[in-house]
Parts: sequence; C-alpha cells; structure tokens
Amino acid sequence: MCSEPKPLRPSRWSQQRTEQIADCRVFEVRRHDLRRDRDGKEGSFYVIHAGDWVNVVGTTTNDEILLVRQYRYGIGDFTWEVPGGVIERGEDSVAAGERELQEETGFIGSGARKIGVCRPNPAIFNNTCHFVSIDKIREDHPTDWDEHEEIETKLVPVDEVLAMLRQGAFSHAMTQAALLHFFIDRDQVGSPAPR
Amino acid sequence: MCSEPKPLRPSRWSQQRTEQIADCRVFEVRRHDLRRDRDGKEGSFYVIHAGDWVNVVGTTTNDEILLVRQYRYGIGDFTWEVPGGVIERGEDSVAAGERELQEETGFIGSGARKIGVCRPNPAIFNNTCHFVSIDKIREDHPTDWDEHEEIETKLVPVDEVLAMLRQGAFSHAMTQAALLHFFIDRDQVGSPAPR
Repeated sequence: MCSEPKPLRPSRWSQQRTEQIADCRVFEVRRHDLRRDRDGKEGSFYVIHAGDWVNVVGTTTNDEILLVRQYRYGIGDFTWEVPGGVIERGEDSVAAGERELQEETGFIGSGARKIGVCRPNPAIFNNTCHFVSIDKIREDHPTDWDEHEEIETKLVPVDEVLAMLRQGAFSHAMTQAALLHFFIDRDQVGSPAPR
Repeated sequence: MCSEPKPLRPSRWSQQRTEQIADCRVFEVRRHDLRRDRDGKEGSFYVIHAGDWVNVVGTTTNDEILLVRQYRYGIGDFTWEVPGGVIERGEDSVAAGERELQEETGFIGSGARKIGVCRPNPAIFNNTCHFVSIDKIREDHPTDWDEHEEIETKLVPVDEVLAMLRQGAFSHAMTQAALLHFFIDRDQVGSPAPR
C-alpha cells in the first residue's frame, strides 16, 4: 500500500524561550517554545519540572518485600506501593533510597544499590526515577513522616508480591517499574515458566 | 526500639474545594483543598488532570515487537518506546490502542486485548494508562501523525527487546510497564532463568 515516506530519523528541537506557568510546590509547570532543527517549525509544549524520585525494593532475610499503603490525592484512593519519595537536591539516589525507606517505614538494611532507572514521562516530565534495592531490612528506627503522611507497612513474601503483581494489585507505574527491575535483577524475567 | 504507634490504616481525605491553576492543553493543573476524615486536618494538593493513555505491544507472526522512536520535549531527547497516545473521551481503551498503532505506525493487527493497566502517578495524576496487546501486526495503512509528530519505527525480535530492556534502552516508565505486562501475559516473569 502507498504510504508517505518516513523521515530516516525524527528531528531534534531547540528551545527558544521558556516561561513558568505554575508553581505547584512539588512540581513546576513551564511552557517551552521550541523550534524544530530540520525545518524551523515552531511549537509550544508544556513541561512539568520536578525533582528526581527514588523507589526502594527492600527485602528481608526471609525473602519478603516491604510494601506501604497510603492515601493518594491524585486518584483519591489508597494504593499498595514500594516505599519512595523525592531525592533532595545534590543527594545521591542510593542514599536517598535508604533515607526514604527509614523515614517512611522505620526500616534499615544493607547492600543498597541501584537496580534501574526510568523517565516517569519523557513527553511531559523532565525528571528521572531511580530504583534501589536494599537487602536484610529490619525495623529499627522510628518513622519520620512528612506533615500529611500516614503510612501502613506490610512484609510480603516475594512469591506473593509476584502473585499480587499478576492480579493487578499494584496500580502505581513507579511500583510496577520498580518490581520489573527487581525481577530483572534476580534474572526472573524472560525465561519460560515451569510447566 | 521505641516507635510512635502506627495507625492501623491510613485515613481517607474529602475534597472541600478545587480550583484550576493552569490549562496546559494536554493536561490541566488543579489545586484540591482536602480535609482528612479522621481528624479534620486540612491540606492543599496539586493534581494534574489528564485524559487516559494507552500503550500498545504489537507483535508480528515472527515474534517481533514494533518499537517507535521520537523526540520527547519533556526530557529534550529521543526515546525508543512502544506506540501509544491519549484515549479520546468515551473511546474504548482497546479500540484506542488499535487507532494509535495505526495512526503512529501504519500497522494494523488482530486479537487486540487488554493486558494490564497502571496509574501513571497516583500522588499527582488522576488518570489511568491501559496496556493493549495486538497480534499479527503488519504495515498496511499510511500513518496519520499529529502536527508535530515524526515517528521512526522498527521491528525487533522479542528476545532482543528483552535484552534492550535489561540494558536500560527503554527509559519511558509506560513502556517499561507495558513490557512488564507483556512478559507477565506470556508467563515469563518470576520463573528462574535457565542456567
């Protein structure tokens, strides 16, 4: 069938101007006026500027994963997630994962390391989300919640977390991605399941 | 160690007022003034209202996945992703997946079905992203790009897509989640890899 020719590669765009549209505390909305390098075509696009995020898959020596449940204002409902939060300016992402785990749940562990990364939405967000694995976690510190936080915690065996994932129990895209990287890290993605 | 008592369950919040902060074409930012049901504590939170999204994992009869590459304004760089877009008001999510696949890539297929769903960010977004699988895809129609779209397409064998995923080639969280649901649907998550 006849189809219009596709460009070999999409073009890059260069920023001409940028203007703040709204300051929303945990993010800022800016309008970017861009020009396409190939042909000078102009367009304005809204971009949400936010700090980088970190999500933590913490496991106990019994191969349980620590889950948190909280009320989420965006959807107006409760979610089960892995712990996480905003990385402070200049803070290392792995250190931020350890801090968020401790603040939200009171758990600490060892062997914290990066297992993956994503861009939450490259079309409209400028930020990055880091995924951190922490081993041998155990309840140790008191929690240190932000003003509006109330966080329920639960330790769930890895196999049950996988069953919950299959059943759609984790709605948050960052938690789905965190668990994807966790199972990739354990070499448990892509092989055929036992019959 | 002494720890403050945790509430058995986090509390729900009720909306008192809402106000539009910014209209950004593909999304709207609103401030929600909420009150916590348990104790009447008040707080204001910014929520991004957006239409629902759909992402499509399309496979050929040769077990290849169709990938798209485009310039993304949020991060100011190119990304490899699975095709996707915004579901129109009242449109069925599976039908939207078929439409987006055809418009972005010119491919059509059969057996389109839902394989998963996520909330892109329950903390600050109100919307849902649907994941759709389409089989036996083939190039058929001309593309029908939006005004600023330029989309490169590539068919990649499923095993290579998995290798790309492991290597971090897919930054977009929605693409990572789409592939997670695709591999869950194929029963390829959670089993030990062959040694």
